[in-house]
Amino acid sequence: MELLKEKILREGRVLRGDILKVDSFLNHQLDIELLNEVGREFKKRFQDKDVTKILTIEASGIAVAVIAAQYFNVPVIFAKKTESKTLDADVYEGNVYSYTKAQQYKIRVSKKYIDKGDNILIIDDFLANGQAILGLKEIIDAAGANLSGVGIVIEKGFQQGGGLLRKAGINIESLAIIDSLGEDEIVFRNN
Amino acid sequence: MELLKEKILREGRVLRGDILKVDSFLNHQLDIELLNEVGREFKKRFQDKDVTKILTIEASGIAVAVIAAQYFNVPVIFAKKTESKTLDADVYEGNVYSYTKAQQYKIRVSKKYIDKGDNILIIDDFLANGQAILGLKEIIDAAGANLSGVGIVIEKGFQQGGGLLRKAGINIESLAIIDSLGEDEIVFRNN
Repeated sequence: MELLKEKILREGRVLRGDILKVDSFLNHQLDIELLNEVGREFKKRFQDKDVTKILTIEASGIAVAVIAAQYFNVPVIFAKKTESKTLDADVYEGNVYSYTKAQQYKIRVSKKYIDKGDNILIIDDFLANGQAILGLKEIIDAAGANLSGVGIVIEKGFQQGGGLLRKAGINIESLAIIDSLGEDEIVFRNN
Repeated sequence: MELLKEKILREGRVLRGDILKVDSFLNHQLDIELLNEVGREFKKRFQDKDVTKILTIEASGIAVAVIAAQYFNVPVIFAKKTESKTLDADVYEGNVYSYTKAQQYKIRVSKKYIDKGDNILIIDDFLANGQAILGLKEIIDAAGANLSGVGIVIEKGFQQGGGLLRKAGINIESLAIIDSLGEDEIVFRNN
């Protein structure tokens, strides 16, 4: 998606070699017009899927997911990272390993909101190690629902997640795939 | 807002006297059509304010804020509750006291995204004790920006936040104010 790549080149900043800061438009300040273009593009790429629900994970996946949901006319569910007094006791759990924090944590979705027949589109802002997506897939599998695909705004193509998930047969659409990150250069994969 | 009140009566559940569960449409599963009506209503109520940015707090405020932002044509900024490697070192901080957890925590916004001249509309899903709003106001004040108003989806009118903030001269618009919560009855304030 050209508009997104241009935005990354213009506003993204690279820290310590492998961190891409895009907090001017994607995960702190949110550029709503751009998110609308992102949502429209996801709809185009998944238009042949009969998506019934969009699943994401708090917090920064929520913005992308809700804007995209307007193009699919479906509800969004966001998996919770923390136990909450307002979350049902009856939940599907997924396990996510965080490389940054070197620890595993659980994500949860109430059983009420995913049904057997659901075709779920996962949407998230970043794909790096793919662990969050695997945790969400665990939840979808436990519910007996169908994973229609995964829509990612920015994939770090130099990390293992994309390869791992594609090898597992998951249909991933990343709107920008970065093959290498340097202080002065961001190289995109042609996709 | 009648549509919202009807939804609360139909789908809300009351737990242990003072907890209102609305996770079927507002803070776990998200009803995008309803959020669009909520966004439209906020625009109506704040139409005379020259809002330049919407500020919210992760996580469940994000969904309401981004949908509403489409009616204001402004960016959203969400304050972060945790320190993040992708957040700038140069931040405005607010203090939020959590009655539930009986402890204070900090919320942060990068200094880059709030300017002196900004007219900020705060949007959040719930108003109970008002502590989150006070923390966000601290950030706006520190930036020398102007707080144009506060848009709340559901206010627990039987808790102190609404009174506290109105007494401080803050312009709050709550789309549903609940005066009392019981297992079998939810009483709304006429507003």
